[in-house]
Amino acid sequence: MDFQSKKLINDPNDVVTEFIEGLVETYPGLQYLDGFPEVKVVLRADVSGAKYDKVAVISGGGSGHEPAHAGFVGEGMLTAAICGDIFASPPVDSILAGIRAVTGPLGCLLIVKNYTGDRLNFGLAAEQAKSEGYKVEMVIVGDDCALPPPRGIAGRRGLAGTILVHKVAGAAAACGLSLAEVAAEAKRASEMVGTMGVALSVCTLPGQVTPDRLGPGKMELGLGIHGEPGAAVADLQPVDIVVSHVLTQILSSETNYVPITRGSRVVVMINGLGATPLMELMIAAGKVVPRLQLEHGLAVERVYTGSFMTSLDMAGFSITVMNIEQTILNRLDAPTKAPNWPVGVDGSHPPAKIPVPLPPSHSKKNDETLCRPQQLSPEGHILEMAIEAAATAVINLKDSLNDWDSKVGDGDCGSTMFRGASAILEDMKKCYPLNDPAETVSEIGSSIRKVMGGTSGIIYDIFIKAAYAQLKANSQSGITALQWAGALEAAIAAVSKYGGAKEGYRTLLDALIPASSVVKEKLAAGEDPVEAFALSAEAAVAGAESTKNMQAQAGRSSYVSADILASVPDPGAMAAASWYKAAVLAVKNSYQAS
Amino acid sequence: MDFQSKKLINDPNDVVTEFIEGLVETYPGLQYLDGFPEVKVVLRADVSGAKYDKVAVISGGGSGHEPAHAGFVGEGMLTAAICGDIFASPPVDSILAGIRAVTGPLGCLLIVKNYTGDRLNFGLAAEQAKSEGYKVEMVIVGDDCALPPPRGIAGRRGLAGTILVHKVAGAAAACGLSLAEVAAEAKRASEMVGTMGVALSVCTLPGQVTPDRLGPGKMELGLGIHGEPGAAVADLQPVDIVVSHVLTQILSSETNYVPITRGSRVVVMINGLGATPLMELMIAAGKVVPRLQLEHGLAVERVYTGSFMTSLDMAGFSITVMNIEQTILNRLDAPTKAPNWPVGVDGSHPPAKIPVPLPPSHSKKNDETLCRPQQLSPEGHILEMAIEAAATAVINLKDSLNDWDSKVGDGDCGSTMFRGASAILEDMKKCYPLNDPAETVSEIGSSIRKVMGGTSGIIYDIFIKAAYAQLKANSQSGITALQWAGALEAAIAAVSKYGGAKEGYRTLLDALIPASSVVKEKLAAGEDPVEAFALSAEAAVAGAESTKNMQAQAGRSSYVSADILASVPDPGAMAAASWYKAAVLAVKNSYQAS
Repeated sequence: MDFQSKKLINDPNDVVTEFIEGLVETYPGLQYLDGFPEVKVVLRADVSGAKYDKVAVISGGGSGHEPAHAGFVGEGMLTAAICGDIFASPPVDSILAGIRAVTGPLGCLLIVKNYTGDRLNFGLAAEQAKSEGYKVEMVIVGDDCALPPPRGIAGRRGLAGTILVHKVAGAAAACGLSLAEVAAEAKRASEMVGTMGVALSVCTLPGQVTPDRLGPGKMELGLGIHGEPGAAVADLQPVDIVVSHVLTQILSSETNYVPITRGSRVVVMINGLGATPLMELMIAAGKVVPRLQLEHGLAVERVYTGSFMTSLDMAGFSITVMNIEQTILNRLDAPTKAPNWPVGVDGSHPPAKIPVPLPPSHSKKNDETLCRPQQLSPEGHILEMAIEAAATAVINLKDSLNDWDSKVGDGDCGSTMFRGASAILEDMKKCYPLNDPAETVSEIGSSIRKVMGGTSGIIYDIFIKAAYAQLKANSQSGITALQWAGALEAAIAAVSKYGGAKEGYRTLLDALIPASSVVKEKLAAGEDPVEAFALSAEAAVAGAESTKNMQAQAGRSSYVSADILASVPDPGAMAAASWYKAAVLAVKNSYQAS
Repeated sequence: MDFQSKKLINDPNDVVTEFIEGLVETYPGLQYLDGFPEVKVVLRADVSGAKYDKVAVISGGGSGHEPAHAGFVGEGMLTAAICGDIFASPPVDSILAGIRAVTGPLGCLLIVKNYTGDRLNFGLAAEQAKSEGYKVEMVIVGDDCALPPPRGIAGRRGLAGTILVHKVAGAAAACGLSLAEVAAEAKRASEMVGTMGVALSVCTLPGQVTPDRLGPGKMELGLGIHGEPGAAVADLQPVDIVVSHVLTQILSSETNYVPITRGSRVVVMINGLGATPLMELMIAAGKVVPRLQLEHGLAVERVYTGSFMTSLDMAGFSITVMNIEQTILNRLDAPTKAPNWPVGVDGSHPPAKIPVPLPPSHSKKNDETLCRPQQLSPEGHILEMAIEAAATAVINLKDSLNDWDSKVGDGDCGSTMFRGASAILEDMKKCYPLNDPAETVSEIGSSIRKVMGGTSGIIYDIFIKAAYAQLKANSQSGITALQWAGALEAAIAAVSKYGGAKEGYRTLLDALIPASSVVKEKLAAGEDPVEAFALSAEAAVAGAESTKNMQAQAGRSSYVSADILASVPDPGAMAAASWYKAAVLAVKNSYQAS
């Protein structure tokens, strides 16, 4: 299948210069040379060549590998990055311009990935610069472990391991070392590193039609970063198996590409190729580390996971393993201002996981301690009456609720509320501590949580939790009418806050908010508490009935036409009015009876 | 078209827990709660709830948005991240476990993206935590600007702007502010931020088959981060136009979603949705900033470009604009150890571009000053003879070179060399400063550079450059035979280093390396210089002839069968032997004639 990949770009010919413009907009520590479109060089804004008193570290190559190389320019890493066109080595004049812009008396080190074009162009620029009086050294990185030796004149390709060489060289240069010393450290690092990649897709060049040589369900092992075919095509496997294969190949004693043996200390880089989500890279990282430790007997000192050396929009990743002595590790750990070098990766690892904390002991009584009291206090008795009445009212309303809900929702409101009410009645007999009203409210929440699913379950759970917290916070022994009213208000506020509904949204709040307002007002006016609640219950019923005139704003009802909505009240509001009124009347009756 | 996207994962049900395992392997500052698979909580390794003396800042939600939210856990940003399954709100118990693990006496702030599931689950957990004695506040972020008001109970979706709210709250908490103060800053920040996205592809859930509702050449504007359809589908446009549209919508005075007017100071985030290469994000960033400045009259203080809040493997990006007062900017700039918060983005911008540096004045004579001397010195005369002989030899060999090359290469070796030799002869008459041998060598390089393309051109250019640098560095006036031999050796070393060829690789080095060895050896043995070079010329010819027996390691010849290779010598080696021998004999004749 051929396809032209969709890209969010302008002119395909301008992608590199426009990338650089965006890069320097993002990072004020970076600048570029005003030589577009031929000269595409990103450099540290704080370095002025002739006066620079450190060894300049310069890298670059074809573009399409972002953030490499420009994203690694910064104090402690690269001094400049020379950007070619997509997958094309930069021309000699562009490299020379970069060398001249950042190289001071101590000279510069060119770090070049092992591709013929890059070697020759950087090489010619190096010779030209030398003839201009600059001190120049070059280190060539070929870290590919996918193909067996001999590799002839081409040698091993330069891949993501190059980034680690940049870091080592940049940190060495930042310490003020000489060019020979910086070059020696970079060369040593380049000999310690091996990389191999796996891809799930080809990369697509801007403005070009690309044949997808990979079929569905296939992956390529040992690919390059310029769309070169991989060393092998295989069926897609779980990443754990892919990782195992790649690590075995990198560490193969047959090719002996990297001098790593059991007991070696290593760092590892899991490098996304451009279109691979971080989730997948992290999953791979989580498999790489234990395999290196347990199967290969290595000490993994650092893990670098991210997209460092990409291949346009290729899906897949490469794994890089580097043998480290303490010097190299110190260089890797040294601070840098390069924007795309990972942060937070150094330091020793604490235990990866810690126990889930237990609930604070004061918050939850042991299940055994919760039980219905042998003797109910007068208040406990009234509370029992109220709860029983409320639950019974909801149970009796089951069919009506289902009927209304079948017209404006999914038809299960009555059944859901029935389950909750039944559980309350059952649990109350067994374990509600009725002489402690706040804890009893909390237990109503437990009953609801057990049997009521969906949004209504969680909303009632929030309602009860907020009421309980309010009661606990504001009452020591016994609960006054004002405190009950306060709990109602807090519970309504929590449901409104977390659920997002307000008055008039055709929800249970349209019953409860008027009730809360009335009881608050009447109590403030000095009304008898029982009478105040009785009046509030009437307000709840009126509020629930008034939902017929409301447009739905939430849940399934919001998709139902106004005609149908006008014929039925909101079942949630009706249920709330029903249990509220029943509870209030039960309390009123108890007081009148006593 | 339906397709199951390829992913580098193991079991689709384990992607979130395996992501977390890889995350903590990568970042030693992070830990997770040992409650897999139900409890998926990432937290700072240096925070122990009961003793934590700052306000804890907690966020989370469904997974699939990596690095959000776990990648933003770290000192100065989030204290813990609660991870749900892919696109599913985490359960209450998981949130509660996170709250209990990191919340100390100062309490915790929950920052929740505005989705019903998250609001309710975090809300219930908050109420439960309060009932356990914790101080808890919640701020809900709804920064979506794609859909017009009113948005009813659902409100505006939480998108990438949430990351900026995390940063503000985290920095405020790190300063030791109270819960009320931290919550107030987070709320203020959430009211200042607007976001809108554009997508080129749908996201594909692990293990699921996904219908691609977007056709080729189409994009979606105003999408969500859970695969929700966008507000509009449009033909794919250049990103400049896309950016313009998105910014206009975010800043619309009609919806008035964010309080940004001309003259406001803003920060902007260009957020990749998962499969978008950094190059494209940077291109967008480079267009966003000037548009905000010039068209909308805003001062852009910071640009955050990267993948922060993704949607699995969706291709596309979102743009977030946030109005900032100095307080908010200070919070955004404050240091943090959160691994995925961008670094290097603060500070004032120097000029984006600086002039391309000129070549150092000492390195290049002005073209006018270069000319053939009126009077040739004796050495200058000999040099002229040598160059003329060498060039003529190559010219005479043109057809043979082409013939050999047509059998083992692309058949143009003779023509390419002919062009170089002709240019040398022509330029020598006009402008070679023949009395200055080093500069004359340099000018030979200029002639070659002008007319010889391809690998052979650049290789000869490197050869000449290295010879010139060696001559310049080691000779003041006149050049001894030993110095000429040294220049040859340096030139060979440069070609071998940058080109990668060694002796026996069937290249021009197979003529030149034997020559260099012989002349060095003979001179060291005290041989007459003219005779030493004459002997070395014979070695060059013998070396070139011997390439018939060599397997090609470089260039097109490496694809040619051994049978054919055995019938012809390497044309590059023959050309080199030819010019070398001709030059040497011309010098010899000059000395014998004098």
